[in-house]
Amino acid sequence: MGSAQPESGRKQPVTVSESSIQRLSRYYRTLESAAEIGIKHISSSELASSNKVTSAQVRKDLSTFGTFGRRGLGYSVEELKMGIADILGLNRRYNVVLVGIGNIGRALLDFGEFRRRGFDIVAGFDIDPKKVGSKRKGVDIYHEDDFQEIVKKLDVDIGIIAVPAANAQDVCDAIIKSGIRAILTFAPIRLHVPENVAVRYEDMTIELESLSFALANG
Amino acid sequence: MGSAQPESGRKQPVTVSESSIQRLSRYYRTLESAAEIGIKHISSSELASSNKVTSAQVRKDLSTFGTFGRRGLGYSVEELKMGIADILGLNRRYNVVLVGIGNIGRALLDFGEFRRRGFDIVAGFDIDPKKVGSKRKGVDIYHEDDFQEIVKKLDVDIGIIAVPAANAQDVCDAIIKSGIRAILTFAPIRLHVPENVAVRYEDMTIELESLSFALANG
Repeated sequence: MGSAQPESGRKQPVTVSESSIQRLSRYYRTLESAAEIGIKHISSSELASSNKVTSAQVRKDLSTFGTFGRRGLGYSVEELKMGIADILGLNRRYNVVLVGIGNIGRALLDFGEFRRRGFDIVAGFDIDPKKVGSKRKGVDIYHEDDFQEIVKKLDVDIGIIAVPAANAQDVCDAIIKSGIRAILTFAPIRLHVPENVAVRYEDMTIELESLSFALANG
Repeated sequence: MGSAQPESGRKQPVTVSESSIQRLSRYYRTLESAAEIGIKHISSSELASSNKVTSAQVRKDLSTFGTFGRRGLGYSVEELKMGIADILGLNRRYNVVLVGIGNIGRALLDFGEFRRRGFDIVAGFDIDPKKVGSKRKGVDIYHEDDFQEIVKKLDVDIGIIAVPAANAQDVCDAIIKSGIRAILTFAPIRLHVPENVAVRYEDMTIELESLSFALANG
């Protein structure tokens, strides 16, 4: 994982660290911005400096997935962008269901970036009778009791958990029962899931701790 | 950065990747959970498996900051926990101001984890007259026009930006003008800040892309 490999064409990713995937997402954003302003080539040091990593790290991250760029010429912005999109599975759209229409749930529904990046929230769920039956940003809010039935009708790829910690595992179990194999959770507890289910934790304190590190070491 | 260094006591961190800092935060959470259930020692492979990285990565991350653990014995949970808290600057509390009391702002105010982890939101700001003058979770909401004046009275370490993208740079400039040197932003735009200001981007699509990677490569 993450160890430099000889550059020899696109390889099957075997074990890749989450950090490395997150960096690819960040490189992808830099490439998008570069493409928008008409830049055609970008060097590993340019990609590095706008993402606060070393050029060696950039080259290592990219070489894990195959050959990109040519020595001295840097990377073709368009090619690398497509390459990373391919790696990250961004060349298609994903259907997402959201459980919990509190502050975070509402923020997610209102957040245009998800749709722009290919993630469509296709249904919301809550237990509050005031929310059930309503619509937000065109998305229907259903009762959590109807979760299995609704999910069966939609072709859902990802479930988002935005309920209080005390209910998160129950919601997680319901999501897994429905056959969904990818979960993003905002609840600050560790979830128990089978091996074949991918879970990501959106932990907003992690970035704050990165700032406290910067303050402590600045 | 991130390259394995000889283990020779606590070193001054020079350049450390954000990924490495984020992993330290995650190890810290594992250590907290371990301490809670009374576990005294933990191996790099245990720390690795609960954080989905390799043991080599764990050892590398920790060796960057000095000597932890003894060959064969693993790490002392208590010692490593204190060591990481020291590195991350978690042995003190931080005063945080929050600009933008929309869905995300409200979620942050309601989110007990921040306080539990040493980050106290001491003031909120908005321009909506319905919000200005109110309190949420004991936090006063002021008008953004009074930002400089209020911040001067509080000893503020970190500013959080939770306003729409179109206003984010203006809010960022105001935060910097007030003397705050650490910023967490939820707005999906790149901010222009001087070298001596640390910025972290809370980008909720990054974790979704990590899931699309898992689905594309699962």
